[in-house]
Amino acid sequence: MSILSQSDLANRRDNLTVRLRELKADAFLILALPNVHYLGGFTGSNGALLLTGDRSLLFTDPRYQTQVSQESDCDVKIAKGPLITEVASWIKRLRLKAVAFEQNRISFDEHCQVHAALPAVRLKPVSGAVERLRMVKSETEIGTIRASVHLNSAALEQALRQFKPDMSELDLAAEIDYRMRILGADGTAFDTIVASGSRTALPHAHPTGHSIRGNQLLLVDMGARVAGYCSDMTRTHAVGKLNPKTRRMYRAVLESQLAAIEALKPGATCASVDRAARQVLRGYGMDKLFIHSTGHGLGLEIHEAPRVGRKDGTRLERGMAITIEPGVYLEGVGGIRIEDTVIVTETGCEILTPTGKELVVL
Amino acid sequence: MSILSQSDLANRRDNLTVRLRELKADAFLILALPNVHYLGGFTGSNGALLLTGDRSLLFTDPRYQTQVSQESDCDVKIAKGPLITEVASWIKRLRLKAVAFEQNRISFDEHCQVHAALPAVRLKPVSGAVERLRMVKSETEIGTIRASVHLNSAALEQALRQFKPDMSELDLAAEIDYRMRILGADGTAFDTIVASGSRTALPHAHPTGHSIRGNQLLLVDMGARVAGYCSDMTRTHAVGKLNPKTRRMYRAVLESQLAAIEALKPGATCASVDRAARQVLRGYGMDKLFIHSTGHGLGLEIHEAPRVGRKDGTRLERGMAITIEPGVYLEGVGGIRIEDTVIVTETGCEILTPTGKELVVL
Repeated sequence: MSILSQSDLANRRDNLTVRLRELKADAFLILALPNVHYLGGFTGSNGALLLTGDRSLLFTDPRYQTQVSQESDCDVKIAKGPLITEVASWIKRLRLKAVAFEQNRISFDEHCQVHAALPAVRLKPVSGAVERLRMVKSETEIGTIRASVHLNSAALEQALRQFKPDMSELDLAAEIDYRMRILGADGTAFDTIVASGSRTALPHAHPTGHSIRGNQLLLVDMGARVAGYCSDMTRTHAVGKLNPKTRRMYRAVLESQLAAIEALKPGATCASVDRAARQVLRGYGMDKLFIHSTGHGLGLEIHEAPRVGRKDGTRLERGMAITIEPGVYLEGVGGIRIEDTVIVTETGCEILTPTGKELVVL
Repeated sequence: MSILSQSDLANRRDNLTVRLRELKADAFLILALPNVHYLGGFTGSNGALLLTGDRSLLFTDPRYQTQVSQESDCDVKIAKGPLITEVASWIKRLRLKAVAFEQNRISFDEHCQVHAALPAVRLKPVSGAVERLRMVKSETEIGTIRASVHLNSAALEQALRQFKPDMSELDLAAEIDYRMRILGADGTAFDTIVASGSRTALPHAHPTGHSIRGNQLLLVDMGARVAGYCSDMTRTHAVGKLNPKTRRMYRAVLESQLAAIEALKPGATCASVDRAARQVLRGYGMDKLFIHSTGHGLGLEIHEAPRVGRKDGTRLERGMAITIEPGVYLEGVGGIRIEDTVIVTETGCEILTPTGKELVVL
């Protein structure tokens, strides 16, 4: 089921548990499902990991008994009740004295439960330890993201061949999702966005029953999941003729996107890439219409570290997978966004998305 | 966008804030997105509510500025950074002294941040307050769930008309999801499960490229989201001929499902309904093969309170929406599950799912 070998998984866990000494902890408790997937290979909807360096315990419930044994090389513990109770009993059984946990991935309540069950155990909050490991992708992961990106672009191309004026946003979204599945995706990476006319001014519009009419914008933001890995692409099309003002907006966003891509290289900060995108829009007097970040990491989750935003000082590294997606939005008029998935390389970046970015008229 | 009137939303908030006096708190902090949706009408992916009884503050980021004003009647605050920082500054500004929060929906980290910013404010953990309100559905909500269930059944019927032996699990799943979208669903309520042959023994199988072959089982577990509300249905079909042992398994699960439905009425506990399902399977010597709960509540989320399991003492009330889905799983052989969505009525329950449950041979 998994595309990973057992040694890949063991290496990932070693990269984490090597930090236990510095944290003065005997074990790492992992509750975030994408991190359980990344470190343990398990893709079910209920799981937890307890990693001591010597032992890797994976907790799930009876529904996943067969699946987990196919997917994971860990020592599996099937819990009949809440996993956190079973985890606490194993912390006791293994006589662990200090356990590091993911402070932004455990609920206040789960933390209280472990603390109440084991008052003598020191619980050590750690932030983003697994997320930092996940930022830099292996060759296998990059290959899978590439497959996801290519499938996504093929799905858009096939779906647009079915496009007819006055088709509803919902019907086009249905067509897109269908093509992804037929091409072999696990599913979509997020709810497909299809917005037309003035609804393109909503950055996260849900598709509606509205007809896609002529002489308007059509924005599509879509991503596939392939072998667990996400892709993400936005294209804004013209249905018929656009007025000069809207065409100028398109040019501004495209230049902004190209400038951000140009700024991408190992050592550059995320904030500097974001700045490059904003600077171009400022030249067009449109920087105030750009109301979100320039991009984000992606992988097992659609939004991962780093965030390509004003305040993120993360320095880019070879092997990071991120999106570049500036956009401008004018309420009541419309919005334009152009987004690619890219990989940071030794000297700059590789744009994985094969779909063209010149304005397409449908 | 929302199917709810402003007074519906205000009533929901009143039903929650009426509890503030008993909790000795000045305000309720709501961070769980489905609860923000339920109480504030907002469907975006980043939101928080602070409810004082007099004031309803809804926090989100600039991407949702236009959408939130269309969806919500609350006093909207657009935050440029993390919402929790903005929430803390408003707790201070409103001079709140004690704030109730959802203990199982706030992360350890967010709790620390609020506490560090406002050391003098008492933070009061509360469990499942909004979830308890959401258990009993209004007439409008039941109408929407009914629409979701009917759409889901229509999608299965249409997809099965396209079924051909040797079709892959993935292609059937694609067909199902497509039909849902074309019929007007927002999307799927969860990743559609299509499993055939011995893979039906995995309760949560992902569809694969495997062909669906003759003389085997075919299990489909699917749900739609319509106007935000989920449906959930499982049917197990025969592709060609099944052996007598498998047919006996089917009969056992169907009787078990009918017995659970028979046991459903206001005042009965969830545990008693679960027991009714298990008892039938015990008669067949198959109770050990039933490795999950009998069902779960559903609504804005696919899994909500109550849990129809061994240990849930919740008493059923008129207006609850739950699934009834016993199943048996034999590793290496196969699994059978039959699931309907039902509403608890004054005297028993109404099965919303119109799809037949006799074994269908494809």
